[in-house]
Amino acid sequence: MDTDAAQVVHYSNYFKFFEKVEEEFYRYLGFTFNDIVSKGLWFPRVEAFCQYKKPAKFNDLLEIELTVEELKEKSVKYCFKVYNKESATLLAEGHVIVVAADKQTGKATSIPEDILEKLKPFCK
Amino acid sequence: MDTDAAQVVHYSNYFKFFEKVEEEFYRYLGFTFNDIVSKGLWFPRVEAFCQYKKPAKFNDLLEIELTVEELKEKSVKYCFKVYNKESATLLAEGHVIVVAADKQTGKATSIPEDILEKLKPFCK
Amino acid sequence: MDTDAAQVVHYSNYFKFFEKVEEEFYRYLGFTFNDIVSKGLWFPRVEAFCQYKKPAKFNDLLEIELTVEELKEKSVKYCFKVYNKESATLLAEGHVIVVAADKQTGKATSIPEDILEKLKPFCK
Amino acid sequence: MDTDAAQVVHYSNYFKFFEKVEEEFYRYLGFTFNDIVSKGLWFPRVEAFCQYKKPAKFNDLLEIELTVEELKEKSVKYCFKVYNKESATLLAEGHVIVVAADKQTGKATSIPEDILEKLKPFCK
Repeated sequence: MDTDAAQVVHYSNYFKFFEKVEEEFYRYLGFTFNDIVSKGLWFPRVEAFCQYKKPAKFNDLLEIELTVEELKEKSVKYCFKVYNKESATLLAEGHVIVVAADKQTGKATSIPEDILEKLKPFCK
Repeated sequence: MDTDAAQVVHYSNYFKFFEKVEEEFYRYLGFTFNDIVSKGLWFPRVEAFCQYKKPAKFNDLLEIELTVEELKEKSVKYCFKVYNKESATLLAEGHVIVVAADKQTGKATSIPEDILEKLKPFCK
Repeated sequence: MDTDAAQVVHYSNYFKFFEKVEEEFYRYLGFTFNDIVSKGLWFPRVEAFCQYKKPAKFNDLLEIELTVEELKEKSVKYCFKVYNKESATLLAEGHVIVVAADKQTGKATSIPEDILEKLKPFCK
Repeated sequence: MDTDAAQVVHYSNYFKFFEKVEEEFYRYLGFTFNDIVSKGLWFPRVEAFCQYKKPAKFNDLLEIELTVEELKEKSVKYCFKVYNKESATLLAEGHVIVVAADKQTGKATSIPEDILEKLKPFCK
């Protein structure tokens, strides 16, 4: 279902893959989007980017690497590299910038201290 | 983006088409899902079904017919027929059963009177 | 990304989950959709059905059970039960009927013998 | 179905909207992706970008503006601006870079002359 009539993974789906990886990363760090919501916050994306180098095809096993590229008071930039796991070829790379925002006002706000602490060790 | 590597519309997308048609129907009747939500309700699906007769391909223009098949106090059954508009061929047909539910308790409840009145003329 | 504004998993996504499970099942049996395609066949769905009992929410861990309900010469019916893994609650159940079809003519054809043999032990 | 549990349009869906607009643009120019395919070509995306300024919500009517930002021998860059039609607010803007590629070899190739001629008047 991730492929299209050109028989390659549809370009919009890489952004879904990025989100899956981000979710898994949070789970690994010991929290989920729900915990963020329960603090009256949410983490909208303010920017998304992807460069496509080689197509992924049906049944390709993909491995996606996440790095914390930039950690600011109110935002975090995640970079992603998508590899074909079998051939170790780089298929695509991109980033998303996520902002902590107040659920009521919609305004950018500080990333909660405990989450910041968990992210710091992963920042280059 | 609706097609897959088999170069036909992915079977799950017909259910997205059904929802689009349902939304357009509500818009035509003069209300939206937002109006339902503002009454403290939502309209979850309790059943969905589709039979696929012929594949839809990239760039096919589809025409979808909605009929109100069954109108009960708490639920409505919509039937859908998906045609290739150019050839007038029936590609798929199916239904969804939508229930009025209380947003807080999640329990089935009566469809609001004004919405019921708007639906009645379309019921066979 | 599987949820919608009603904050539950969108009903069309269950059909994507069904397909994921079907793919994993084929992988478990030792073949993929690619192997089917290389035999000049494809496996279109001719029917899909789902009953929704309780909503799945963001971050719920789902477990999906596949059973081979009916195995005919040219078609196979898979049944699916979707559970919330933590609470062991049944959230939804449904089925798809898959037909073996000739990629050129589009006509229904016999399921290849070796695939049939692999499916048989799972049929009740 | 375009929204998520945060009750806004999921960020990956803007890229689907971009593609819809690109398709409509081709249709307006008098050709489709099918015509490209019949010339032994396809138009993969090599880059996609979006900046999100304000969220789109359920039932918002969106208007999307496409501009041909850059037209090269083998590639074209489309820019998109997504507006809330009612309030005329800019919600998001982004771009995609599309490359003409040979369907067999996968290599970048010249955009067919007749398509190039149709695109030229739209390039700033």
